[in-house]
Amino acid sequence: MASIFTKIINGDIPSYKIAEDEDNFAFLDINPNTKGHTLCVPKKEVDKILDLDEESYMKLMAFSRKVGQAIEKAVPCKRVGMSVIGLEVPHVHVHLIPLNTMANATFQQKESLTTEEFEEVAKDIRSYLN
Amino acid sequence: MASIFTKIINGDIPSYKIAEDEDNFAFLDINPNTKGHTLCVPKKEVDKILDLDEESYMKLMAFSRKVGQAIEKAVPCKRVGMSVIGLEVPHVHVHLIPLNTMANATFQQKESLTTEEFEEVAKDIRSYLN
Repeated sequence: MASIFTKIINGDIPSYKIAEDEDNFAFLDINPNTKGHTLCVPKKEVDKILDLDEESYMKLMAFSRKVGQAIEKAVPCKRVGMSVIGLEVPHVHVHLIPLNTMANATFQQKESLTTEEFEEVAKDIRSYLN
Repeated sequence: MASIFTKIINGDIPSYKIAEDEDNFAFLDINPNTKGHTLCVPKKEVDKILDLDEESYMKLMAFSRKVGQAIEKAVPCKRVGMSVIGLEVPHVHVHLIPLNTMANATFQQKESLTTEEFEEVAKDIRSYLN
């Protein structure tokens, strides 16, 4: 069965899309640690990041770098953190998280955004990717 | 002034070394989330990962993948997580953390190891890198 991320990539589940290339897709985390929290996902459905073949892994990392740099420009923060955990959804995803404190990186504090806020931050991030 | 990681790389501060190449260095985190928790650090002293030039970033990510795969073979765990936060030491470092639960990824629970346990897990990980 397709993972929730494959359904998002295919457009079967709506998302606040940030970027897409041939191999990867980025969209806002709907339950963000902080505003601008984004997931970068390879279109290839693999569970663990270290099981990705080297080429796919390197493409995902290059893609995540570009998206992360756009987030860092668009969202006020000390830096953008990167995190790959993957115990919940068995489809590789790189978390890119605007950080101001260590707590922002722990996935225990969450920020609530309105639809308008999601749309606005997505638009702001996308503006640095064109 | 040299960062604590530069001092480790230069051998001015001892470490449980895991791997080294021309550009990067890996050693056990002395205050690990879980046994086998390793840091991968570029020899170039840059604060934020997204400020690394693309070539250095890609080399660090390729290096981290190889070290992570060795950890996953050496240390019983569900998977090895990757995390870059960097709010504490201003020198890029990729955390590679053997994960069994989400709590292992939050940097709030720590595991105490004896010198012998550090040496043993370092040796086990290194055995998969040769």
